[in-house]
Amino acid sequence: MRAHSTAMNKEFQLRFDALRERIEARLESYFAGDLSLLEAMRYSVAAGGKRIRPVFTLAFVEACRDHVCGTEEAMDAACAVELLHTYSLIHDDLPAMDDDDMRRGKPSNHVAFGEALAILAGDALQAEAFAKIAGCDLPAERVVKMIAALAEAAGADGICGGQTFDMQGSDDLYRVHSMKTASLIAAAVKIGVIAAGGSAEQLSAAEEFANGVGLAFQIRDDVLDATGSAEALGKPVGSDAEQGKQTFYTRYGAAECERLIAEHTKAAKDAVRAAFVDAELLCAIADELAMREN
Amino acid sequence: MRAHSTAMNKEFQLRFDALRERIEARLESYFAGDLSLLEAMRYSVAAGGKRIRPVFTLAFVEACRDHVCGTEEAMDAACAVELLHTYSLIHDDLPAMDDDDMRRGKPSNHVAFGEALAILAGDALQAEAFAKIAGCDLPAERVVKMIAALAEAAGADGICGGQTFDMQGSDDLYRVHSMKTASLIAAAVKIGVIAAGGSAEQLSAAEEFANGVGLAFQIRDDVLDATGSAEALGKPVGSDAEQGKQTFYTRYGAAECERLIAEHTKAAKDAVRAAFVDAELLCAIADELAMREN
Repeated sequence: MRAHSTAMNKEFQLRFDALRERIEARLESYFAGDLSLLEAMRYSVAAGGKRIRPVFTLAFVEACRDHVCGTEEAMDAACAVELLHTYSLIHDDLPAMDDDDMRRGKPSNHVAFGEALAILAGDALQAEAFAKIAGCDLPAERVVKMIAALAEAAGADGICGGQTFDMQGSDDLYRVHSMKTASLIAAAVKIGVIAAGGSAEQLSAAEEFANGVGLAFQIRDDVLDATGSAEALGKPVGSDAEQGKQTFYTRYGAAECERLIAEHTKAAKDAVRAAFVDAELLCAIADELAMREN
Repeated sequence: MRAHSTAMNKEFQLRFDALRERIEARLESYFAGDLSLLEAMRYSVAAGGKRIRPVFTLAFVEACRDHVCGTEEAMDAACAVELLHTYSLIHDDLPAMDDDDMRRGKPSNHVAFGEALAILAGDALQAEAFAKIAGCDLPAERVVKMIAALAEAAGADGICGGQTFDMQGSDDLYRVHSMKTASLIAAAVKIGVIAAGGSAEQLSAAEEFANGVGLAFQIRDDVLDATGSAEALGKPVGSDAEQGKQTFYTRYGAAECERLIAEHTKAAKDAVRAAFVDAELLCAIADELAMREN
């Protein structure tokens, strides 16, 4: 695969798709039942998205070549990260928060189910995320570390703190991004390395990868909000500018954003190539995310 | 101590107060900092209440006489249950939910901080609850089981499901109570027994205790809402009747409620006396809760 190609090499695309399909199947198996709460939970979990966080978890398990756990033992932990991400989107969309009516081309959870159920569905998804990791068939020491990583990303120093700063109109772009977005990507990759029994060096390389990829991801998001098409994104565009919101795009402009995306993506790839036997799937995903159009 | 005395025997009162004071001190040590999110979290955690759930956790550690962990090692886990309870109260009070402006004699979290911060403070408290247990200095196998117990109580089959039924006006009093209230009391006692390395028999006795005490507690709550004073309760009374809500009091009347409270309290006490060397503090607390006036 060429660096910065927009089309992922076919071999990596197949590996990526295979992981994503197994994740989709596992997510679909959760929360069966006809209670309205379960229906509201399933609605947002099924709404899709790139599943990039759980794919990262499993791709890091695969990257730890001498791993003592396969992707199957880590599957519920990978999905737990996606459940936590889904809960945070449901709550972010609420009228009292960002008040977004659409998400991934569908009515937001509170538009479909009402505010009370949307709050409860988010609350329950957070609890179920921890339940899923606790149920993983892995050594207990690792499970505790995986739970600690997810809880750290989910709490006041992570997505809740980041959303607070964002709502309060903080113009510290890097801090908001780091708490609100990068923290959960970091948890996803750390959970993969911990599940596989990776080394401290691999854990730290994975965090560096998450920081680089997370920043590139966020900058691309801001660029797409300013220049992309509503159809491709499945949500209205130009909302940042409309709200007079400071973003990487408004601060740095198009050309500098592209340079930053390339720089952070390269740093991410260098970090994992130095620490893992086979980091090429991770690098291919990093490139794909950097160049994505939706 | 006489059974059903309203005044707890002085020895037990001292032990209870000692546990509660240590819990208060630990809770006060959490979430330092001047971020508005942390302030909103501290506000509701400090708002008090009986701290009955964490006291139960520690009292069960003490009841497991041959325990290999003391109450100190289980302290963060006990407090985690209170953090989870506090988050559920903040979200239950929201305008989209029960819309309660007062809680424990103070303005509800969303009245004091606004809806967005109240949602985020609740969300962050749930995450921090799992972080606190994951940080306990106990064997990892136990920590995983403790987390699983809390997650089960917090999820769709526990308080979130119970609150959904309650909001939808379910008249299945026992199911609503069991999911919304008893589940977290059960988690509190199980976490204590697991932390202390108790036996399967002790775990099951603790669950029976939680069911009995939880039911008696809920029935007493309904009686007090109908007959208590707003001053003693720190919240408006008669709200159940005003909303035409079905409660144990409206269904069974005063005399039958008293009989049920006595019956379930006795069952709870019998269960722990049969399984623990020293269950007398637990029994004293059960009696105190049954006869409480606020």
